[in-house]
Amino acid sequence: MQSELLSALAGTLLWFKCENLQKAGAFKSRGAVNAVFSLSHEEAARGVATHSSGNHGAALARAAQLRDIPAYIVVPENARAVKKAAIRQYGGEVIECAATLESREARLAEIVASTGARFVPPYDDDAIIAGQGTAALEMLEQVGDLECLVVPVGGGGLLAGSVIACADSGVEVFGAEPEMADDAYRSLQTGRRVTSHTPNTIADGLLTTLGERNFEIVRDRVAGILLVSEREIVDAMALLWTRLKLVVEPSAAVTLAAILRNPDVFRGKPTGAILTGGNVDVTDLPFRTAEPAR
Amino acid sequence: MQSELLSALAGTLLWFKCENLQKAGAFKSRGAVNAVFSLSHEEAARGVATHSSGNHGAALARAAQLRDIPAYIVVPENARAVKKAAIRQYGGEVIECAATLESREARLAEIVASTGARFVPPYDDDAIIAGQGTAALEMLEQVGDLECLVVPVGGGGLLAGSVIACADSGVEVFGAEPEMADDAYRSLQTGRRVTSHTPNTIADGLLTTLGERNFEIVRDRVAGILLVSEREIVDAMALLWTRLKLVVEPSAAVTLAAILRNPDVFRGKPTGAILTGGNVDVTDLPFRTAEPAR
Repeated sequence: MQSELLSALAGTLLWFKCENLQKAGAFKSRGAVNAVFSLSHEEAARGVATHSSGNHGAALARAAQLRDIPAYIVVPENARAVKKAAIRQYGGEVIECAATLESREARLAEIVASTGARFVPPYDDDAIIAGQGTAALEMLEQVGDLECLVVPVGGGGLLAGSVIACADSGVEVFGAEPEMADDAYRSLQTGRRVTSHTPNTIADGLLTTLGERNFEIVRDRVAGILLVSEREIVDAMALLWTRLKLVVEPSAAVTLAAILRNPDVFRGKPTGAILTGGNVDVTDLPFRTAEPAR
Repeated sequence: MQSELLSALAGTLLWFKCENLQKAGAFKSRGAVNAVFSLSHEEAARGVATHSSGNHGAALARAAQLRDIPAYIVVPENARAVKKAAIRQYGGEVIECAATLESREARLAEIVASTGARFVPPYDDDAIIAGQGTAALEMLEQVGDLECLVVPVGGGGLLAGSVIACADSGVEVFGAEPEMADDAYRSLQTGRRVTSHTPNTIADGLLTTLGERNFEIVRDRVAGILLVSEREIVDAMALLWTRLKLVVEPSAAVTLAAILRNPDVFRGKPTGAILTGGNVDVTDLPFRTAEPAR
């Protein structure tokens, strides 16, 4: 999709890849489907498992449902009800645990041990990376003269898949990341993967830390990691809602925020942005709100 | 666009015509463009004028800009800044007046007298009705087996255009209207056009009263006017935002609300709904809201 006004604001033609309209509301369906359908019949029969408080859990549950196999999704007990409902809607089994990484990993290990299910990680996995890369591949087919591509970076599944997809295209791939969750930026700057940080951003899909294989794939191939502030994320999200008329989540809006913050990088270069997802709780939106009308 | 979940909720295949993605964010662009480009060169040179606090004003300004002629839009002084900005963005001249119908009409008459501009009414006009009807025409082409079509009714431009467009198709056309602005419903019930009422609905595109020629066109052709409550409008809007991932205005959501309220009418019949517009102020949304996160 395009918007004349957003292109004018950016000083270049912008193209938006609408993964908010993807099944399960996010690009995560791409990697999940690829991972599930890459399993042998024997592996698949025992099901798949993961831990997730976000879009990966619902996407994996849906992919498993498509193959008619079980999905066990470990979810922190403080996750939103809407997230658990999405997993169950796709036939996934929600397994609650305490809201710590240790608890999530321990509970997942128990599930895998007792069921024989295959652990499908959210980003640090070849099948996931390959699946996520198909969004960029499609953009290359759909937009002939693309010069730049901007994708959000959290764990780095989409970014790694995108740089591989664009390797022979001449398209420069940028990661966009919140200042308040800047581990990928710092990892690339220092050349050493940051493994411990305490992110705090409205872009709740980008709280994860850049994965090991993701770091290795992107470190020499990405054109840069562009940081954006929380205010810039919300402003970009408002522009996408009011100009494209699309419901996108904050993690998706970091792309437009990064483009608008760096006009000199993108001016005159046809640029794609992957709008990664549209799963939001409409009763809890970040726009400054007046009281309800009624 | 379609959503498996919304179709399942309705018990039939639903198709949504996304006029929120239309230029200027609403189907009003169709009628405005038809009206402006139907003028002779001589008429057009003097420009067009209307009074509007909503989408018609911006749509007419944009249509006039396309033909490079002046547009004079009389806007009540209490209209939202965002509405005036939209008119000016398309090169229209905003003329403020007091917030009464009398004042709007008097100011418009002055403008027409002093400029010679052609008054383009928002709905009670043949060129407008014909233009609005193209949305339904396109749906008939795009969805082969449509049996029902549901469109919002305010002044009745879209409804009149839709019943004409569907006249030979066998498609039943329903109007959807807020209980709190039920003049079309009462007009059809009694066979006499209600000309005075005091609507009060969140669906601010539907505050107008059914027009004269609109009433004559729809009275014997419409399959029915379906009423919906304010709560049903907001709930349907939330479904459209979270399931279709589309920003639609409350006036557009009355269609889905009417379908979900009348399952026996639509069950098993492939049904289209025209999502008429997507112009909302994201800082003033009707969903029950928590405090902003930051």
